[in-house]
Amino acid sequence: MENFTIYNPTTLHFGKDVLANLGLILKEYGSKVLLVYGKGSVKSSGLYDQVKGYLEQDGLEVFEYGGIKSNPVIEDVDGAAEVGRKNQVDMILAVGGGSVIDSAKIISVTIPVTHTGWDFFSGKARAVKAVPLVAVLTLAATGSEMNPFAVVSNHALGQKAAFGSPLTFPKHSFLDPRLTISVPRDYTAYGIADLIAHCFEAWFGNGEASLSDRFVISIVKEAMEFGPLLLNDLTNYDLRARIMFAATMALNGTTMYGRSSGDWGVHSAGHILSLLYDVPHGASLTIVYPAWMRHFKAQIPGRIAELGTRLFDTPLTADQSIDRIENFFLSIGCPVRLSGMNISATSPQAIIDGMVSNKVNGAALKFGEGEYEALVGRFYQ
Amino acid sequence: MENFTIYNPTTLHFGKDVLANLGLILKEYGSKVLLVYGKGSVKSSGLYDQVKGYLEQDGLEVFEYGGIKSNPVIEDVDGAAEVGRKNQVDMILAVGGGSVIDSAKIISVTIPVTHTGWDFFSGKARAVKAVPLVAVLTLAATGSEMNPFAVVSNHALGQKAAFGSPLTFPKHSFLDPRLTISVPRDYTAYGIADLIAHCFEAWFGNGEASLSDRFVISIVKEAMEFGPLLLNDLTNYDLRARIMFAATMALNGTTMYGRSSGDWGVHSAGHILSLLYDVPHGASLTIVYPAWMRHFKAQIPGRIAELGTRLFDTPLTADQSIDRIENFFLSIGCPVRLSGMNISATSPQAIIDGMVSNKVNGAALKFGEGEYEALVGRFYQ
Repeated sequence: MENFTIYNPTTLHFGKDVLANLGLILKEYGSKVLLVYGKGSVKSSGLYDQVKGYLEQDGLEVFEYGGIKSNPVIEDVDGAAEVGRKNQVDMILAVGGGSVIDSAKIISVTIPVTHTGWDFFSGKARAVKAVPLVAVLTLAATGSEMNPFAVVSNHALGQKAAFGSPLTFPKHSFLDPRLTISVPRDYTAYGIADLIAHCFEAWFGNGEASLSDRFVISIVKEAMEFGPLLLNDLTNYDLRARIMFAATMALNGTTMYGRSSGDWGVHSAGHILSLLYDVPHGASLTIVYPAWMRHFKAQIPGRIAELGTRLFDTPLTADQSIDRIENFFLSIGCPVRLSGMNISATSPQAIIDGMVSNKVNGAALKFGEGEYEALVGRFYQ
Repeated sequence: MENFTIYNPTTLHFGKDVLANLGLILKEYGSKVLLVYGKGSVKSSGLYDQVKGYLEQDGLEVFEYGGIKSNPVIEDVDGAAEVGRKNQVDMILAVGGGSVIDSAKIISVTIPVTHTGWDFFSGKARAVKAVPLVAVLTLAATGSEMNPFAVVSNHALGQKAAFGSPLTFPKHSFLDPRLTISVPRDYTAYGIADLIAHCFEAWFGNGEASLSDRFVISIVKEAMEFGPLLLNDLTNYDLRARIMFAATMALNGTTMYGRSSGDWGVHSAGHILSLLYDVPHGASLTIVYPAWMRHFKAQIPGRIAELGTRLFDTPLTADQSIDRIENFFLSIGCPVRLSGMNISATSPQAIIDGMVSNKVNGAALKFGEGEYEALVGRFYQ
């Protein structure tokens, strides 16, 4: 077990009608709110009106930035920060999925300074102050509601990068599973895949941590048991709740205590597919994970075999584990090759070039010279 | 799944040499420290001198209250609060096990007011302000280092009661597993039993929560796998670390999300044994749990059977589950009857009277009229 610190200051409000307390909690931070949200669904679902109703009822003054994209881009971060800065907002309310909350984290550290949002990713700026951030979650997937991490794309530079600081945890997050009931089947599946992939990144990270391993297995089993049931019963509150909570626990620290790091090589590679072809994040991960495990199988056969053995409660080899995991992804309608997203006609070289320029790699398992080609080849086979 | 809130503001520093940052962190809260500790071992182990060295090196002024008992009493809380109040301390540093940290929590809310410590247990006082509390843990057992709960005895009233408030979380807790290496075999086992019992209280509580159930099983399995190894290898850092971390996770909220409450009937009954005969807390729980499960077996046969089945990875009936759990407690040297603590000559009536006056009960499983007699009878059989 490695030394570690547990620090997670987010207060999470989970369940039916938790939004009723939203205005009361926001008022603790002042009176001027920057409301940040995505494209379309927040307005069409009525959530936008509901949230504005709560804010106005509690006398809060609302400024807005809408239109955050599902693979969020840095231009929106800077645009929203400008609105927040100009109006001297006291807090940010992010209403949406991981892309909106991730963007809001960078907006929160950009508003108080003269830097651009990308300066935090490039290392030019350090987070020293943040506008308080509160989140209302509408998609079970990234875990952004209870962690400090943000991933944003910069298409001008051809990069998709991650940032996190102790200042970028949401102060409060509101999770009403009913807000996820309108998420369509495919994105529901991508969310399930995303939470499983977060657990796998911990599993394949650095450091031996037996209890955190048990938590990984617990969360993935929860997703594998209730995920398929949910996909056949999309409006079931109880199943939505179980998956929503599993997604939070998959990336709020619980899988990481006693490890020095996760691996994150699969996320690093998946980001290239999203950057180039706007592949949904969860779908990029189900394409990369089987390929990644086959690529590194010779280096960590025992670890892959143990993962499958414990997940499926039967002794499996590394090969069998990979096949079973791949089949699970397929069974919930996730792609495991580029052809599954109808983008098989792409050039492997464009992906390889993106990997080179983004320095795609994991913290535990490293790609050597020329290995991107072998990995990317598996996205097509 | 019931609605729930996750809120745990404690920063936990876990591993070798984490105490080196102690003074630096305490200085955030001011300059005057009330150092609270127990009887004997903190001084004989050298930890007292080490901690004072860190504090003096960072220019902190230290006031002291030592001698907290292992089943802590309210007189010490009031005595320590008086020292803190008189010297207008800025913070409390608790160095010890659960009894010291529990006491320090009540001290922290008593110092700022004119109430006595017991007023918080009796409901006469509400916690509205607390002196910041930092803990250095020396015993893996109660989980007090990362929760708001405190249990203290009032012998004048014949009561042992629990209190908790959002204000009584430690701000920081320092867990260096090496500080537990000198804990003798019996108390090491009682700590393992205590953490398992905390998980069981969650398991038998109100509300169905599948992921929290998986966490319960994970933590108990961790304790059942590494606990016996540790008891044969008491100076092994890695095993100490695994048990210490499991004890923290057993009562920091992780087992409770989605439940409306734990049961806590076994703790409630165990407190009577500690109150009357100074039975160590963990030992009181291993006496009560088999009796409690046999008592309520007819009401919750499936839940008891499922617990054993999942813990031992083999299909078990409720009776078989209870036998296996009882045998596990015996195998680590914990008592499962009063005779195991050499107190079988006690009067059942004294215990029953204590249960009546303390209104012993659980939140989920309730004792009816005359049922204490049946339960207590099982402590002897």
